[in-house]
Amino acid sequence: MAAKETAPASRGRVTITEIARRAGVSVPTVSRVVNGRSDVSPSTRARVEELLHRHGYRKRPATASPARAALLDLVFNDLDSPWAVEIIRGVEEVAHAAGVGTVVSAIHGRSGDAREWMRNLRARASDGVILVTSALEPTLHEQLRILGVPLVVVDPMGSPADDTPTIGAANWAGGLAATEHLLSLGHRRIGLIAGPPRLLCSRARQDGYRAALEAAGLAVDERLVVPGDFRPESGFTGCAALLDLPEPPTALFAASDQMALGAIEALRRRGLRVPEDMSVVGFDDLPEVRWSAPPLTTVRQPLADMGKLAVRTVLRLARGEHPDSPRVELGTELVVRSSTAAPRS
Amino acid sequence: MAAKETAPASRGRVTITEIARRAGVSVPTVSRVVNGRSDVSPSTRARVEELLHRHGYRKRPATASPARAALLDLVFNDLDSPWAVEIIRGVEEVAHAAGVGTVVSAIHGRSGDAREWMRNLRARASDGVILVTSALEPTLHEQLRILGVPLVVVDPMGSPADDTPTIGAANWAGGLAATEHLLSLGHRRIGLIAGPPRLLCSRARQDGYRAALEAAGLAVDERLVVPGDFRPESGFTGCAALLDLPEPPTALFAASDQMALGAIEALRRRGLRVPEDMSVVGFDDLPEVRWSAPPLTTVRQPLADMGKLAVRTVLRLARGEHPDSPRVELGTELVVRSSTAAPRS
Repeated sequence: MAAKETAPASRGRVTITEIARRAGVSVPTVSRVVNGRSDVSPSTRARVEELLHRHGYRKRPATASPARAALLDLVFNDLDSPWAVEIIRGVEEVAHAAGVGTVVSAIHGRSGDAREWMRNLRARASDGVILVTSALEPTLHEQLRILGVPLVVVDPMGSPADDTPTIGAANWAGGLAATEHLLSLGHRRIGLIAGPPRLLCSRARQDGYRAALEAAGLAVDERLVVPGDFRPESGFTGCAALLDLPEPPTALFAASDQMALGAIEALRRRGLRVPEDMSVVGFDDLPEVRWSAPPLTTVRQPLADMGKLAVRTVLRLARGEHPDSPRVELGTELVVRSSTAAPRS
Repeated sequence: MAAKETAPASRGRVTITEIARRAGVSVPTVSRVVNGRSDVSPSTRARVEELLHRHGYRKRPATASPARAALLDLVFNDLDSPWAVEIIRGVEEVAHAAGVGTVVSAIHGRSGDAREWMRNLRARASDGVILVTSALEPTLHEQLRILGVPLVVVDPMGSPADDTPTIGAANWAGGLAATEHLLSLGHRRIGLIAGPPRLLCSRARQDGYRAALEAAGLAVDERLVVPGDFRPESGFTGCAALLDLPEPPTALFAASDQMALGAIEALRRRGLRVPEDMSVVGFDDLPEVRWSAPPLTTVRQPLADMGKLAVRTVLRLARGEHPDSPRVELGTELVVRSSTAAPRS
């Protein structure tokens, strides 16, 4: 009995009993922490979680059985994103072929929803989680680790946590290509409607824009860089602000297709035409921009492929294998349509 | 033994043994049919399924347990539909609140995929199925019945099968409202780009268009009605065909937003402006048409609400309750934006 209690964690799987002893709490208390229940004081929870983490405690859901069909959870912050369906499409295709069901959910950035989701995840014994540009509270992230549920993040929102595999797109190269395209048409005053600065992808697109201008020997005019949040409304107001400058740009790189559509509407309201009066480049290549008026020149982001790779990665992790690389960026591609042209001479 | 073998089905639950005896096959053969396995001859399968159906055999998935979290399956034909995400959003919201996971899949109209999906559905012991404008093969539909998995159909594609509850939108009223709006602006030659005739919703929208014209005392000019398939390309070609008429219409009702966007592109290519040269009304109110150029007048279809009601209905069925009505149509609403105006005088 004494030998068991003092067994070092490195000897094998640490038990809940061992964690309880080290934390100076009861076994049911540790169990409550492991199962994400709320009836534990914050300080006790912190102490127990620290011990669980230090000793590498991993719990497989008790309800899992070989007969049960595999499930993975695909989690969005919100499902109103226009590219959600593209990612779902890619994930479903690969998951379906592997006989794995895709449970889609949204946590709406609300911690209550996230906790509820975690409870459901545990109850359905999900085999893996793909998180799309969502922030999980650190405690929930830690719970996933304790449950032993593999996690892959698509298009990370900020600094990716620890060793979680992430899948993104080549955002910097895309921003560079969009801006180089406008430069090659002869534009010299090129506006940028940027994405939210807290997102890594926004920062990368903006840096690509700056790099292209600098490579062309042009100084970045900070008045030509306006903030946006990826939604059409912010493209509308951002474009209006640029048009109100004493010397407006002749071309515009919007860091999302939706902002590009908002910008085109701002131009239309002022009786300005695209591309005759202003060239516009977007970012994403959503299906609908093939049919915007005019069809949009944009940077194609391989959203469905990102979803496919996320499934393959999470299934590898579920089998105990390691991904080829913890950070993958899939290539972006400039798609030239009808919204860009040379500036008026 | 003799008494048991001749027990009528109406005495209670019919057993697999009883079905096997009546079909003149072995118990394992009946079991294979019930479990959807392929190693049964078509004629045997048909005979066994007929008996299962006649005797009301219902099987609950053996893997279901009270501890397991509930799951429902949301099934699309294809996930590239622009309104898929709207329906997913509504379904997920209500399912999440009920602690039910939403498994999203696409069967791509291929029977192989549908059979694969049925196997997975059985393995994960899904508690209910919501089918979105997809045709399930009759045998699969029958298997769902045998498994006792409740089914709800959203926006039925053709004549809804038997007593399956269906949830649709008021398509006829929407077609009527779109056309009445154009008539009220003074248009008399109004073109229709119709949806696929095999879909009930297409037929209802077209009949609403006809009813509005007839109520206004106008004969329907069949040359002004062109076929489409709800996709943008068909709106483009349909609009081009209408413009090539000796006497083109002055306004256009496209039976989907995507066809309306295709039509606007066809007009733009010919240097024609919306609404100055042609008014255009769509159908759906997809999020992106608020930002089309110009913002689209359209008929709002409550897709998210249809998804929400589908979840409530399938959960009621899963509890053994009956829906209030087996057929529900949610209201549609005309949304007037900037793509419609009075005709040039």
